[in-house]
Amino acid sequence: MGTALAETLMNAGHDLTVWNRTAAKADALAARGAVKAETAAEAVAASPLVIVVTFDYASVESTLKGADLGGKVLVNLTSGRPAEARRTAEWVRGQGGEYLDGGIMAVPQMIGQPGALILYSGSRTAFDRYEGELGALAEARFMGTDPGVAPLLDLAMLTGMYGQIAGMMQGVALARSEGMSAADFTHNLLMPWLRAMLELMPGWAEEIDAKSWGTDVANLGVNGVALRMIEQAGREQGLERNLLAPLKEVVDKRVADGNADHGLQSLVEEL
Amino acid sequence: MGTALAETLMNAGHDLTVWNRTAAKADALAARGAVKAETAAEAVAASPLVIVVTFDYASVESTLKGADLGGKVLVNLTSGRPAEARRTAEWVRGQGGEYLDGGIMAVPQMIGQPGALILYSGSRTAFDRYEGELGALAEARFMGTDPGVAPLLDLAMLTGMYGQIAGMMQGVALARSEGMSAADFTHNLLMPWLRAMLELMPGWAEEIDAKSWGTDVANLGVNGVALRMIEQAGREQGLERNLLAPLKEVVDKRVADGNADHGLQSLVEEL
Ligand SMILES: NC(=O)c1ccc[n+]([C@@H]2O[C@H](COP(=O)([O-])OP(=O)(O)OC[C@H]3O[C@@H](n4cnc5c(N)ncnc54)[C@H](OP(=O)(O)O)[C@@H]3O)[C@@H](O)[C@H]2O)c1
Ligand SMILES: NC(=O)c1ccc[n+]([C@@H]2O[C@H](COP(=O)([O-])OP(=O)(O)OC[C@H]3O[C@@H](n4cnc5c(N)ncnc54)[C@H](OP(=O)(O)O)[C@@H]3O)[C@@H](O)[C@H]2O)c1
Repeated sequence: MGTALAETLMNAGHDLTVWNRTAAKADALAARGAVKAETAAEAVAASPLVIVVTFDYASVESTLKGADLGGKVLVNLTSGRPAEARRTAEWVRGQGGEYLDGGIMAVPQMIGQPGALILYSGSRTAFDRYEGELGALAEARFMGTDPGVAPLLDLAMLTGMYGQIAGMMQGVALARSEGMSAADFTHNLLMPWLRAMLELMPGWAEEIDAKSWGTDVANLGVNGVALRMIEQAGREQGLERNLLAPLKEVVDKRVADGNADHGLQSLVEEL
Repeated sequence: MGTALAETLMNAGHDLTVWNRTAAKADALAARGAVKAETAAEAVAASPLVIVVTFDYASVESTLKGADLGGKVLVNLTSGRPAEARRTAEWVRGQGGEYLDGGIMAVPQMIGQPGALILYSGSRTAFDRYEGELGALAEARFMGTDPGVAPLLDLAMLTGMYGQIAGMMQGVALARSEGMSAADFTHNLLMPWLRAMLELMPGWAEEIDAKSWGTDVANLGVNGVALRMIEQAGREQGLERNLLAPLKEVVDKRVADGNADHGLQSLVEEL
């Protein structure tokens, strides 16, 4: 991800000083004209805008420990929890720097392309000052001055994606247990179905806000039966795991509580 | 669902005899000209093609117990497991009838509309004979002569959808914990993200078939960190459950086994 961000900034005509723990990974950037710093502290010293993306917040902290962030804007694009972002913001402000936290909603190949989005929160003045640079990376959306907001929404969006991925993998495993290839199942059956079902979500979201738990599509009763059949069929087909087990549990609970006629959107009440 | 199917067949000009356990639910169909049978056996006797959709296979069996299926084609659109479909097929053939199992990939509102799909398996001759009637309900796709195939693929597709729903509900719960409305989060952040991420799936499916486990997007290492942060942030935000827990467990296992550099598509190996 660091390489994709750096390349995109260079493509947009910006001068870069780069540093990576494994120094050789910055060679291609250096060959294109980026300055390779010997240490992270040296890279920080080189520019007023510092962008960091590493494995996790612990590695951000250890990387920046010796650097002087006074007068700098630190943009941290590493994924993290709200609590971590707030702590990092305090630490940067304590040194006289400004802090922006960012959540990247894109894979590296999407950086600089239409469709890529980065959510920001923290210093509004820092965001306004560097909106041009940040906008070269992806659509830059400012979500609030609490630095914890962007990371939280990042995690919430990732959560949606991971659910989709878990469902796909479990569904592919079931189809393969009957001899169908993953590609045949995914191209011809799963994709059009998931695309269509995805479009139910905005309606459910509005029902959640209105606390409207009824349904004119499938109710929790029939969905509970389907989830039980998925579990049992998986066992009968020799699958090892059921990634949907907690969803089944929460549907079963709502049905046992007398809410079999409610819709799936009502599950948010149990979370 | 039964009402939607019956209405659509009537719209296509077919004469119907209908039966439902709670008889009053068939009144609107009767008012439009359908014959209301007193018993399920009477409804079966009235036509060569019998379509049944109830709560589960147990209710299909008890409904049809007294009926004579000799010479009939029974199309069972109730969702079920492959084992149940095979047993029902045997039972129908034992009485001299033909059996088609169907999996409806549509909500009732979609029946008769473009985009609705029903998967069929079982008697090919029955399918060919009634392709016109079945095609009026939804795109009719014949998947094989083993009656268990359509129900299995139905469950596999539902599995994908349930993953998507679980992810959405958990993500909405996380966003709401920070005061964002479900509609704001879903419309403005989640939907474009899930639509974009959905398009990674065909590529993953091809990698699964090729047993190609590497990745040039995010590897299991960073995904494991993200799944840990989602769990921890959920706890910090006061959420009660994590519907992604089994996905996290399987990613953690692969990372512990030394496969941190593999992609998410490799998870299918653990299922
Ligand atoms: N890839 C994606 O699709 C994607 C999408 C959105 C967000 N993100 C986020 O972007 C961040 C990086 O992800 P990635 O995909 O780029 O991961 P990656 O390819 O595994 O790269 C990890 C980076 O962190 C560095 N690093 C790890 N531990 C370190 C330490 N202790 N000290 C200093 N540097 C350390 C690595 O340096 P070495 O080269 O020396 O190992 C490398 O530069 C994560 O927070 C991830 O959640 C990624
Ligand atoms: N709704 C959807 O979006 C959807 C999509 C695809 C597939 N399906 C499948 O379609 C089937 C029906 O779903 P639905 O949404 O129509 O459910 P529903 O609205 O709850 O209707 C259930 C039907 O089954 C009948 N029934 C229940 N127990 C019975 C029994 N013991 N004996 C006789 N009849 C009984 C009910 O009769 P009463 O009226 O007397 O209660 C009613 O006609 C399920 O297998 C479901 O998985 C539904």
